[in-house]
Amino acid sequence: MTIPKHVRTMLQSIRDKFALEPLQDRMLPNDSDFTTLRPVRKASAGSIAKYWARLMSASTASEEDRVALTDDVTNPEVFNGNIENFIGTVKVPVGIIGPLRINGLHAHGDYHVPMATTEAALVASYARGAYAASKAGGISTAMLYEGVIRTPAFVLESLLDAGRFVEWIVSHVDRLEKAAEATTGYGKLISVEPMIDNNVVFLVCRYTTGDAAGQNMVTIATDALCREIAGECTVPIQNWYIEGNFSGDKKASFLGLVTGRGRKVSASVTLPAAVVERTLGTTVSDMLAYGQVANLGSHLSGQLGAQAHFANGLAAVYIATGQDAACVAESAMGITRMEARGEDLFCSVTMPNILVGSVGGGTGLPSQSAGLNILGLKGEGKAAALAEVVAATCLCGEISIVAAIAAGDFTRAHEKLARHR
Amino acid sequence: MTIPKHVRTMLQSIRDKFALEPLQDRMLPNDSDFTTLRPVRKASAGSIAKYWARLMSASTASEEDRVALTDDVTNPEVFNGNIENFIGTVKVPVGIIGPLRINGLHAHGDYHVPMATTEAALVASYARGAYAASKAGGISTAMLYEGVIRTPAFVLESLLDAGRFVEWIVSHVDRLEKAAEATTGYGKLISVEPMIDNNVVFLVCRYTTGDAAGQNMVTIATDALCREIAGECTVPIQNWYIEGNFSGDKKASFLGLVTGRGRKVSASVTLPAAVVERTLGTTVSDMLAYGQVANLGSHLSGQLGAQAHFANGLAAVYIATGQDAACVAESAMGITRMEARGEDLFCSVTMPNILVGSVGGGTGLPSQSAGLNILGLKGEGKAAALAEVVAATCLCGEISIVAAIAAGDFTRAHEKLARHR
Amino acid sequence: MTIPKHVRTMLQSIRDKFALEPLQDRMLPNDSDFTTLRPVRKASAGSIAKYWARLMSASTASEEDRVALTDDVTNPEVFNGNIENFIGTVKVPVGIIGPLRINGLHAHGDYHVPMATTEAALVASYARGAYAASKAGGISTAMLYEGVIRTPAFVLESLLDAGRFVEWIVSHVDRLEKAAEATTGYGKLISVEPMIDNNVVFLVCRYTTGDAAGQNMVTIATDALCREIAGECTVPIQNWYIEGNFSGDKKASFLGLVTGRGRKVSASVTLPAAVVERTLGTTVSDMLAYGQVANLGSHLSGQLGAQAHFANGLAAVYIATGQDAACVAESAMGITRMEARGEDLFCSVTMPNILVGSVGGGTGLPSQSAGLNILGLKGEGKAAALAEVVAATCLCGEISIVAAIAAGDFTRAHEKLARHR
Amino acid sequence: MTIPKHVRTMLQSIRDKFALEPLQDRMLPNDSDFTTLRPVRKASAGSIAKYWARLMSASTASEEDRVALTDDVTNPEVFNGNIENFIGTVKVPVGIIGPLRINGLHAHGDYHVPMATTEAALVASYARGAYAASKAGGISTAMLYEGVIRTPAFVLESLLDAGRFVEWIVSHVDRLEKAAEATTGYGKLISVEPMIDNNVVFLVCRYTTGDAAGQNMVTIATDALCREIAGECTVPIQNWYIEGNFSGDKKASFLGLVTGRGRKVSASVTLPAAVVERTLGTTVSDMLAYGQVANLGSHLSGQLGAQAHFANGLAAVYIATGQDAACVAESAMGITRMEARGEDLFCSVTMPNILVGSVGGGTGLPSQSAGLNILGLKGEGKAAALAEVVAATCLCGEISIVAAIAAGDFTRAHEKLARHR
Repeated sequence: MTIPKHVRTMLQSIRDKFALEPLQDRMLPNDSDFTTLRPVRKASAGSIAKYWARLMSASTASEEDRVALTDDVTNPEVFNGNIENFIGTVKVPVGIIGPLRINGLHAHGDYHVPMATTEAALVASYARGAYAASKAGGISTAMLYEGVIRTPAFVLESLLDAGRFVEWIVSHVDRLEKAAEATTGYGKLISVEPMIDNNVVFLVCRYTTGDAAGQNMVTIATDALCREIAGECTVPIQNWYIEGNFSGDKKASFLGLVTGRGRKVSASVTLPAAVVERTLGTTVSDMLAYGQVANLGSHLSGQLGAQAHFANGLAAVYIATGQDAACVAESAMGITRMEARGEDLFCSVTMPNILVGSVGGGTGLPSQSAGLNILGLKGEGKAAALAEVVAATCLCGEISIVAAIAAGDFTRAHEKLARHR
Repeated sequence: MTIPKHVRTMLQSIRDKFALEPLQDRMLPNDSDFTTLRPVRKASAGSIAKYWARLMSASTASEEDRVALTDDVTNPEVFNGNIENFIGTVKVPVGIIGPLRINGLHAHGDYHVPMATTEAALVASYARGAYAASKAGGISTAMLYEGVIRTPAFVLESLLDAGRFVEWIVSHVDRLEKAAEATTGYGKLISVEPMIDNNVVFLVCRYTTGDAAGQNMVTIATDALCREIAGECTVPIQNWYIEGNFSGDKKASFLGLVTGRGRKVSASVTLPAAVVERTLGTTVSDMLAYGQVANLGSHLSGQLGAQAHFANGLAAVYIATGQDAACVAESAMGITRMEARGEDLFCSVTMPNILVGSVGGGTGLPSQSAGLNILGLKGEGKAAALAEVVAATCLCGEISIVAAIAAGDFTRAHEKLARHR
Repeated sequence: MTIPKHVRTMLQSIRDKFALEPLQDRMLPNDSDFTTLRPVRKASAGSIAKYWARLMSASTASEEDRVALTDDVTNPEVFNGNIENFIGTVKVPVGIIGPLRINGLHAHGDYHVPMATTEAALVASYARGAYAASKAGGISTAMLYEGVIRTPAFVLESLLDAGRFVEWIVSHVDRLEKAAEATTGYGKLISVEPMIDNNVVFLVCRYTTGDAAGQNMVTIATDALCREIAGECTVPIQNWYIEGNFSGDKKASFLGLVTGRGRKVSASVTLPAAVVERTLGTTVSDMLAYGQVANLGSHLSGQLGAQAHFANGLAAVYIATGQDAACVAESAMGITRMEARGEDLFCSVTMPNILVGSVGGGTGLPSQSAGLNILGLKGEGKAAALAEVVAATCLCGEISIVAAIAAGDFTRAHEKLARHR
Repeated sequence: MTIPKHVRTMLQSIRDKFALEPLQDRMLPNDSDFTTLRPVRKASAGSIAKYWARLMSASTASEEDRVALTDDVTNPEVFNGNIENFIGTVKVPVGIIGPLRINGLHAHGDYHVPMATTEAALVASYARGAYAASKAGGISTAMLYEGVIRTPAFVLESLLDAGRFVEWIVSHVDRLEKAAEATTGYGKLISVEPMIDNNVVFLVCRYTTGDAAGQNMVTIATDALCREIAGECTVPIQNWYIEGNFSGDKKASFLGLVTGRGRKVSASVTLPAAVVERTLGTTVSDMLAYGQVANLGSHLSGQLGAQAHFANGLAAVYIATGQDAACVAESAMGITRMEARGEDLFCSVTMPNILVGSVGGGTGLPSQSAGLNILGLKGEGKAAALAEVVAATCLCGEISIVAAIAAGDFTRAHEKLARHR
């Protein structure tokens, strides 16, 4: 049996399903007519009703479904500027953990952290980690770095022109800085680094973005920078693109791991042996023993960095506070460390790509705004603290899951908390 | 100036902020008292009120915030089994795109796809891609593979024992299969592959999971498999762990890219030149020219695979249909291809790690259930089609963003749609 | 200074150099005449003399250089079948370490290992590691796996055809196995795994290769397999290629790390505390402390696996024993672990991609053959033992370098041993 | 059959081999006596003879083997400073290709390139690529960047101390620069970039190294820099290490791909359609069609960058010219691009990590020196040109292999040229 079993299994299931039906017709393009939805930028009760009329006639959606999405929407205009073709809202349940004590460069105090998820056991697990960390005196945090990047690409005629182009950029960087920063009250261009692959030059443009997550801000600023280059550069440019698929936007990449994108935060706590035993139901040495195996697993499976489940904490806090949930893809990278400190357990996370804002994006919507208010981190001057809270929360999740797996509790917790469904 | 500017910038901002305050005290552990939240597994009006009383006294949360999270919650029990410490729901706006024509192995017909996001321009962009793809006769899709993995780790005394352990596993795999499958009505263990690193053995246990996303199912089944091994294996085992941080659960990993986790789906469409020009406002050759640069960017930035923004489509559909949003971290990998086909443009995505269920998880909650009903994909027998819809939707997003960047429209679209905020 | 200093430094050095010369002309194509060398497959004294006449007239090569390359070549025909356009031999100095005690599945006994290198301190460092390991009772080794892969790619018309193609392959795998194995007396096709990306199918063809490294063997066998498919398959094939740049041949790839290519070997030894102190001049705890930092470095720098300098040992043994030195690129991956075992230090390496043969390739050349004879591992039935010796040697290198860095000796050793130059 | 076939195959072969023998004893440590080789730093006829006496009594090495390694060694002292425990030289056959026309920033003219290998077909294939490139007017090259890095690691007590440590470094960088540069006449410290993971700080120290490859030079300079820090820094340092396993020394890493290590060179040529057809026996469109598949393969197999077989060219030129062959592991990364330019074919390689010197290392040994003299690139002022020649040579290899695979010739060439063995 030279062919792996899973290949045979899959083929058999397809054969079973399509024994009678001609697959050919099923998978070919089909040019029968259709009427596309009319796009709506500014939602109204009327536009919503029209969409639902269509959905209820064209699909299995029912009146009950319509009510489930629309009942809380008294003023659809509040969502303008955050979504198009609006048909209602999906309600994601929020659980609360805390107080989580944070002794940070920016975040400082005892925080209650709202987490939005539909996965049983997640909130309970993070709550347990937060309790252990707070019992240990709280988590030290520091934002180490910030800088959202856009990486436009320029296509030149030749390698020689690529060199000349870089020479021009270097000689005119002040002008470019001015063009970029003219588009924004908050963004500052902090570095421009050229990356040459023969006749193609990527410019890694890095910005601080004030208290916004800043992805639109840096797009607009970089567009201005590129237009300045395109208009003024004396070396002929064949093509340019606002993004060369290099910045790591919305995806895990090694570049993001090593140079950071968004805010880089480190968070740590040393758990006394007694806290590990009483609160987490395991021992320091058991957690360290598992840590060695988990580290090996991270290498052999080809992760970017090494961590257990940052994504759970990130997605839950991002959704609860109006951040861009798609950025979980790029934020869920970094390093979790657990090391002996005498009898105690040092635990840290370093997360290079936290993309959060305390202003802008979805932060102004009513329920998302409530999430930030629970943290006390809405508005100007709060983004750095918010990033530190996110990292501290992820550290709680790492502590709790490692303890659960080390103690052999992991499966039982999931069985117990999900069984009410 | 041998030190990079961004390092100096960050240090200066810290110096400015903390010129007067002693950082030392700020970042040390602090053992003042605190009262942790009482955990609540079964939410009630009373438990919610108690939490809010605490939050409103301990933070900046106000009555308005309480209302924003709780007003639609008439029956909190509906969320039991999906969350702990429940305090309300966050409302994520949903936009609709379609009809998206899919000619798939499992999905077949014209779909309206609900997308939950707070990011302006996202829904409009996917809608444009869907329109182009449907004009071209629709998207061909096929689920190529399925198999969620858990990878328990066993620590043996020596390399020799590791070899003996593998020998034992291979000789008793039928018994292990029986133990694992006894825990589930749907899960099937389709392969067990040992991976040895000296005295540590990971067992890559791969399952089909019926119509559930299946992450809890495979945890419980694998726990039973491990307990069978721990109880019966004649080779002494020093330690075992339900997960060796190897499976790629909740994170991007090369293992997931290469071997797949969850459902692997490929989706493609050939866009006629006329559709590219009229619907997307650019040309086939411009899209191909950008594709070359984008591919280069994916290599140089160290992505896993090569794609533009799967995460946007994934997060939006996952949230709207009650999937696990944290799985965006592992799902947002794969390959987007664009190639000339005569005058036309072939576009495909292949996504190895789509984690969706049409049953279980958050799919039974009212507004999430509505999302599935809009697709007509709620309940048994629908998960494969749902995975194909997800991939087809991501393909629409890839088409639209590549066209926008190639045409130089990308920035303008974001400026225009976000400016109402 | 938004532009990094290294960019400015490089630009300045180019400006300095080319201030007067027009770069344009220098870098443009130049169509002046030239006479290419006549290719020679079977070298003779005459062909060598002709080449040297050309080289000495066309370049700075002198009679002294000619002698340096040709003096030992009494019979150039011995090199036929290993090289074309032969002009002599380069003499790489060989140092010897040992005895290295190996208690392995295949290698068993005390080995003297020849290492060819021009880098000072390398042989001394490996010798020190070998001494420590042998003092500890020797290194346990096991070849865990073998299988050289070729991965031909097939381009089909569509995703549907790709599915049909895989169906055909699975149904005809016995025929393919026969076609492949007909080309070789030693190679066995042990698995064929299809990997689909829409309309492109890679077939991961894995072979055992007897005692040869086997890269040509698997190429020829796979070519026959492909021709069988191309001739017989009922699904139309648009194009096929003997290698889809997927196998990891001559390059580091995650696929190689996770699935292995060539021979996968694990080697370990537990060093008593006294051996660490007396032989290595450091302590177990100092080595472990450095190990934690080195592991962190491996993650943050994006290595494939985690190790210190496998490449040094691999290149030295490969060159000394007639292996393909270019395979260092794919072999120099894997995992080094150091862990406490009571007071002592457990050290292991697991190397998934050792590409060695005890027959074939350069192993029959006189001085390379001598290298194998020093090991007692020339000829049939010895390849598995040779792979284990390679891994054990690399483990010696890891032990020695970690000890040197932990003890702060690393720099001094290099200064001391290289200073005679 | 849930267990993959290859696992069963391997287990069966072990069972067959060890049916009778008790494996336990075979793999346990063994403390019987042994006498280690006496280390020799300065080789002499006497020391060589002693080693051989030992080898011939302890292994299967014969007088014939001794002669094969020692016959050309008239003056063993020439190898002092390059190797320890010297027993002779291994003769690696050298083939010649050219003239290869290079129109480069540093290399300029028609070069004959010596390549040392034991793999049949390699030299012939590179020669073919060189002929095609030269027919096209030659290869444009530019060294884009240079900078060898060492990355010492400093362990501090806490995250707060890590911040203070970085502050100290930034404030004292001039002093560190002076300490580092005092150790070398050629090395210049061009940047120091701190990388923080909680309480651990890596300092990425980047140097230009004149005409040496420079790995020892940067080690010694960085050691001085570290000692200056250790002696002067006012923040308490718990431990420091000359290398945090972060620099990518002797291994492939994403850091090397992204930021470069050694010399970064780009090389390109546009091949007229007629040259592709007559010299390479295929067509531009066939090469491009294969290029698409090869690019896909590079992504799916998890390569660092995308290329075919840089390692072959690198190993052959490195060995022939006295470079460090182990550096093939880190050099064999980068990007190969092939794109249509009208009817013609643009081909480029960009290689970020070429580690070569025209002085130092093995470059002064007689036969290695001859290799450099054939190129006319021995001695001061030649390293940049040498790096460009290496990249141009690798481009020839990429052109030739892509053409061979596209044309279906790849297997035949290997069969034909290896069959004389």
